[in-house]
Amino acid sequence: MTRLITEVAIIGGGPSGLLLSQLLNRAGVATVILERSTRAHVLGRIRAGILEWGTVGLLREAGVGARMDREGIAHDGCVLSDEDLMVHVNFRALTGQQVMVYGQTEVTRDLYDAQDAQGTTILHEVTDVEIRDPERTGSHVEFTHEGRRKRLDCLYVAGCDGFHGVSRQTIPAQKRRDFERVYPFGWLGILAEVPPVHDELIYSNSRHGFALASMRNERLVRHYVQVPLSDRIEDWSDQRFWEEFSRRIPAEAAGRLVTGPSIEKSIAPLRSFVSEPLRWGNLFLVGDAAHIVPPTGAKGLNLAASDVFYLHGALTDAVKGRGTAGIDAYSARALARIWKAMRFSWQMTTMLHRFEGEDAFAERMRKATLAHLAQSETARREMAENYVGLPF
Amino acid sequence: MTRLITEVAIIGGGPSGLLLSQLLNRAGVATVILERSTRAHVLGRIRAGILEWGTVGLLREAGVGARMDREGIAHDGCVLSDEDLMVHVNFRALTGQQVMVYGQTEVTRDLYDAQDAQGTTILHEVTDVEIRDPERTGSHVEFTHEGRRKRLDCLYVAGCDGFHGVSRQTIPAQKRRDFERVYPFGWLGILAEVPPVHDELIYSNSRHGFALASMRNERLVRHYVQVPLSDRIEDWSDQRFWEEFSRRIPAEAAGRLVTGPSIEKSIAPLRSFVSEPLRWGNLFLVGDAAHIVPPTGAKGLNLAASDVFYLHGALTDAVKGRGTAGIDAYSARALARIWKAMRFSWQMTTMLHRFEGEDAFAERMRKATLAHLAQSETARREMAENYVGLPF
Repeated sequence: MTRLITEVAIIGGGPSGLLLSQLLNRAGVATVILERSTRAHVLGRIRAGILEWGTVGLLREAGVGARMDREGIAHDGCVLSDEDLMVHVNFRALTGQQVMVYGQTEVTRDLYDAQDAQGTTILHEVTDVEIRDPERTGSHVEFTHEGRRKRLDCLYVAGCDGFHGVSRQTIPAQKRRDFERVYPFGWLGILAEVPPVHDELIYSNSRHGFALASMRNERLVRHYVQVPLSDRIEDWSDQRFWEEFSRRIPAEAAGRLVTGPSIEKSIAPLRSFVSEPLRWGNLFLVGDAAHIVPPTGAKGLNLAASDVFYLHGALTDAVKGRGTAGIDAYSARALARIWKAMRFSWQMTTMLHRFEGEDAFAERMRKATLAHLAQSETARREMAENYVGLPF
Repeated sequence: MTRLITEVAIIGGGPSGLLLSQLLNRAGVATVILERSTRAHVLGRIRAGILEWGTVGLLREAGVGARMDREGIAHDGCVLSDEDLMVHVNFRALTGQQVMVYGQTEVTRDLYDAQDAQGTTILHEVTDVEIRDPERTGSHVEFTHEGRRKRLDCLYVAGCDGFHGVSRQTIPAQKRRDFERVYPFGWLGILAEVPPVHDELIYSNSRHGFALASMRNERLVRHYVQVPLSDRIEDWSDQRFWEEFSRRIPAEAAGRLVTGPSIEKSIAPLRSFVSEPLRWGNLFLVGDAAHIVPPTGAKGLNLAASDVFYLHGALTDAVKGRGTAGIDAYSARALARIWKAMRFSWQMTTMLHRFEGEDAFAERMRKATLAHLAQSETARREMAENYVGLPF
């Protein structure tokens, strides 16, 4: 069997695996990345677009901030609205921080470029990954690549392979505990080459359901509407999407709406999920492999980044023989922040969406929450501090 | 039929009716109060015990603040806890305001004394109240008192007769909209002459359910535990109450617990309820007649006081011929504040209680909320601002 060896084996070549690898490499730790898909497939996925300022700092630290700083758009705030109110939350004034609009796809591309320059081994189209003996010395990974079974020896394994990946499943069910909340609706999202309706994001709770007006840049928008889980992409022509989106956003934004053909269209379910703990012997879970948030608070990629923040220093210390305190503390430290972001994402989701079969009291709670935000600077600051990201 | 006449007829001689009457009388507006029970019965009811600073100010303005200022205990904060954390929320440091521990029973007694000194007519044991023609000139109230049918002519009627009173029901069902949320548990409360376990209130979310350690003064406590709605008073001996209470509060507080015989014990259901609007012609609803909060945020009496705050000036203006802008705006102004307090009480209730059949995710959301409060000064300030009372 072909045998490879490294210090940290990274399962998954999405943004979490790449960022972790990049930070480890820059600290002198060797990595090999195993990715199930082709690079083109990874780079074709349309995902998150909002970076917390802590994530921005981490990308810069990883040496991949240059294009982001050139092409990304720093946002000072966002708008929350319903039929009666438009509330501007000024992150910058309230917290001194901003967020960066820069697509996950672009982050991933920058990380691939940096890893290529670094000369890191990234194997694509890897299948049948098995993480062996993660709880003992002698941990290694077996996998199929280019038609042959291969073995990767390592000190540690980082599971960055997403919700459906093998890493979390490697931890015996009786050794982990899963927490889950599935929301009874999905988000239909489109990407289109038209100008944004507003210079900041608009989260809109309308009587027809939730809509989010967001953007990737000045000529590319990412818009969403809440849809029943039973809906299919074929049910939503571009025309139907634009009509529905238009009646869900505030009238003054709808007045500026320019429509155009969608260049991507998809429906994603909304889920809150956490699996505890994040460590099983020499295996460490990172990002979506261990936790999923609904997209309402833009926390998914940012939580992966904070996991990477905690883990890269901890693994470097362990590999360099500076002690295991960091890796011993990783799961608890990361989870403390994860649960707070879970809470924020769940609250934002509950506050902004209609739930089928809900009572009129629930609707009034949503309206009262927005009215309170409009009136209370403290409530806006609380929202802003969570949105720009709690401290690492 | 015996005929009385006044400017404002007040249905209900509890604290809202008495406070409204007192403030109107001091502004030169004549009132007559009709109360279903005896004075002894009204004064025997054990109810709320925490006054917002705005309520304290209104009681002083009404000339009934002297004994409260002598005997009430100003609290600078409260404690929120679960099995792992005790979080102190310092209202004074966070908002510059305090709350006053002074029982509703004492407030009511002070108001009766003041109204007696004022010479206001308060009829007790009044039955079969009918509010006639509230939507027309010629509004009057008919009722039975001392075995005879009587008529009270008036310009305006204030419905201060609580959730089960006649006032709200006088508004035709098709002219009002009710919002309701019934919680699947109740509060078992006891009153006992023992010292408090802590110098501030403790709201405790334990794995056995919620408990509240509160007090009326240094020798009189009011303690509560969450119980299933199916429980009856007979199920709860004093001994069982103290055992259950003791294991639900933080260990350090339980260590100071002194038990004693209960001098009152009752189970109350928890409900969120709002009926809109608060006005029907010349009839105005105040306090529990229009809205009920669960007791978790101590908002019930305080919301009645803010209704009275908005209404007494408005009615004075209307009676004195200074215009109807105030009474025209009353319902919308009062409801804006009511819905925010509803939201706070609902959040506090959700955050602190166990709900039968809930998933593990819900429990983690409670723990994350408390952990976030512990870490974030902004989150504590947001809680404190709501607890001491949003501005009138």
